[in-house]
Amino acid sequence: MNEQNTPIEKIVIIGSGPAGWTAAIYAARANLSPVVYEGIPKQNPSLVLPGGQLMLTTEVDNFPGYPEGVEGPQLMNDIKKQALRFETRIKSLDVDTCDFTQRPFTLNVSDGSVVKAHCVIIATGATANWIGLDNEMRLARSGGGVSACAVCDGALPVFRDQPLAIVGGGDSAMEEASYLTKFASKVYVIHRRDEFRASKIMAQRVLDNPKCVPVWNSVVTDVLGEDKISGLQLKDTKTGEESTLDVKGLFVAIGHTPATKFLDPEQILLDDKGYIQMPVPHQSMTSIEGVFVAGDCADSLYRQAITAAGMGCKSAIDAERWLADQGIH
Amino acid sequence: MNEQNTPIEKIVIIGSGPAGWTAAIYAARANLSPVVYEGIPKQNPSLVLPGGQLMLTTEVDNFPGYPEGVEGPQLMNDIKKQALRFETRIKSLDVDTCDFTQRPFTLNVSDGSVVKAHCVIIATGATANWIGLDNEMRLARSGGGVSACAVCDGALPVFRDQPLAIVGGGDSAMEEASYLTKFASKVYVIHRRDEFRASKIMAQRVLDNPKCVPVWNSVVTDVLGEDKISGLQLKDTKTGEESTLDVKGLFVAIGHTPATKFLDPEQILLDDKGYIQMPVPHQSMTSIEGVFVAGDCADSLYRQAITAAGMGCKSAIDAERWLADQGIH
Repeated sequence: MNEQNTPIEKIVIIGSGPAGWTAAIYAARANLSPVVYEGIPKQNPSLVLPGGQLMLTTEVDNFPGYPEGVEGPQLMNDIKKQALRFETRIKSLDVDTCDFTQRPFTLNVSDGSVVKAHCVIIATGATANWIGLDNEMRLARSGGGVSACAVCDGALPVFRDQPLAIVGGGDSAMEEASYLTKFASKVYVIHRRDEFRASKIMAQRVLDNPKCVPVWNSVVTDVLGEDKISGLQLKDTKTGEESTLDVKGLFVAIGHTPATKFLDPEQILLDDKGYIQMPVPHQSMTSIEGVFVAGDCADSLYRQAITAAGMGCKSAIDAERWLADQGIH
Repeated sequence: MNEQNTPIEKIVIIGSGPAGWTAAIYAARANLSPVVYEGIPKQNPSLVLPGGQLMLTTEVDNFPGYPEGVEGPQLMNDIKKQALRFETRIKSLDVDTCDFTQRPFTLNVSDGSVVKAHCVIIATGATANWIGLDNEMRLARSGGGVSACAVCDGALPVFRDQPLAIVGGGDSAMEEASYLTKFASKVYVIHRRDEFRASKIMAQRVLDNPKCVPVWNSVVTDVLGEDKISGLQLKDTKTGEESTLDVKGLFVAIGHTPATKFLDPEQILLDDKGYIQMPVPHQSMTSIEGVFVAGDCADSLYRQAITAAGMGCKSAIDAERWLADQGIH
C-alpha cells in the first residue's frame, strides 16, 4: 500500500492491560472508533503482553467492583469484552517503533504494516523483574506463594502469621518488607551484599523492625515446593555455601522495567528508568502534544490495576478534548 | 468521654463514593483498620451523600469490570461490600468540622462525638448543580433522559440521532455540547443571556458547529414527559414569553459544587471553586501532611467513577507509606 493512502486513525491505543482497555471503553463511547494494538501473545514479554500483568495473576481482591475477588485473566476478559461492546477494533500485533516527529504520527507494526494516527495513547505497562528461576516462575503463575507485589498479595490469608522472604535491597524492597510485617510472623530480607542500597532511613526502618531478619550475602538459587512454596535454596555469595530457608511466601522486589523500549527517547521524554514522563500534574499528557499515557509505563509509585484503569480513563478524556481542540472529528 | 481518652484512629476516610470505598479496600488490606464516615442519608446533600453521586445514576456503562453495564447503586453496593469483607468500620454520620492544626487531627462528628486520627482521607465528592425543577430531578433519578454528565450518558442508545438540549454557557457546557454532537441529531444550547461566558475559542467552536443551535435569553421552566423526557418549557428572559422545545434529552451543565464546605480554607488549600488542591503531581497529598484526598472533591476535570476509584487507591497507598514513615503501626 502506498503510504500516502494509509488511512489516518483518530486514536491508536498501544497496550491492553486495565489502562489500555479502559482508555478504549472511553474512546469508543466518545465515538472515536479506537484501534487497540494489544500485542502479540508471547512468553517473555519484551514489548506488550496481551492483557498485561494481570494475565499472570491468580487472585485479585482489590479491584473495586468484585466483592468476592476475581482471577486476573477473568478481570481482563471482562474489561476487554466491555471495550468490544462499543466500537473498539483490536489488532493482535506489536507496535515496533513510533515516529512522533511528523503529524499525523506514524507507527510501524510488527507485521510490516504502517499506521497513521492523529493521537496515540501509550499503555504498554511494565514488567516485574524476576530472579529468573524456573520454579519461581511456575509458582508465581500458579498462585503458589511467589509474588512481585506485596501491596497486591501480602494480605492474602495464606501469608498470615507465616515466615516470608523478600529479595531485594532498594527502597521498594524496604517498603515492601515493612509492609509485609503487618501480616507475616517474620520477614527474611535476602540481599546479595552485606548492606542495602536503599536510603539510610528506609534501610534502618527494616533493620529496626523486630520481625525483619536480614539475610546478607545471599542469592536464591531455587524455590522449593510442589503446589505451594515450602522454602528457598540459598547460596552464600562469599563462601559459595548452600543452605535452605523455610518460608511460606517469596516476594521478589528487584525492580520493574517499563515496556517503553520501542519508544525513541530523543522524541518523547522518559525518566532515567524508562518511565514516560507526565509534565502536566494529575493529567495524562506526555512531552508530545497528542500523545497521552496511562498505566504502569508511566507509574513507578502505585502499579495497581485500579490506578491504571483510572489513568486509562483520563487519557481517553484528555485525548478526546485534544482532538476536539484540533477540530478532528 | 474525656477528650484525652478518645482512642486515636490510624486512618479516617470521609466519604463513601467510589473514591472512599476504594481507599477503604486498600487501607483495610494494609491492616490499617480504617473507619469510613459515609454520611447521613439525606435528600439534598450539603455534605456527604452515602454512596455518592452514583446512587442517583441508573445505567453505568463505563466502569471497567462490568461488560454489560451496571446500575449505579448496585456498583456502589458491590464496592462497599468489598470494603466490608476486609476490616473496614462504617459510621453513618457526617464529619461536620475538622481541626488539622494539631496532631493527631480532631474531627467533630454530627452526633456530637469527637474522633482523633493520625491520618485523614477526604473523599466527599462533588454534586452537580441542577436547575432546581421537580420534573428535572424526577427524570434525572429515574433515568428518564435528564443528566448532568455528557461523558457518562451521551453515548446511551436513547440519545442517538435525537434532538438534545444542554443548559449552560461556560467552558464545560461548550465542551459537553461539542461532545453531544457526536451522537445527537441536533444540540440546543440554552443560555440565559445572549452571549456565552465561555472562552471565545470554546464558544466559537459551538457556534461554528452546524449541529449546535444556541437558544439565547432563555431559561428552562419545566421538563415535560412522564417516563421519558419529551420536551422543555422555556421562558424568554427578556420578553417573558413562554415556548416549548421538543427534545429527547436534557444535559444540565451549570457547574459542580465540591463537598468541601466543612473544611476550613484557612487550614487546607482549596482553589477558588472550593476544590481541594493537590500540590504533588500525580499523587494524593494535600497542603497538610497526613491529609490525603481522592475523587471529585479534588477533581474538576474528569469526574468519573473509575478516576475516583483510582485516586482512592492512590490516597490509601500514600497514607500507608506516610504512616509507616511516621512510625505509626
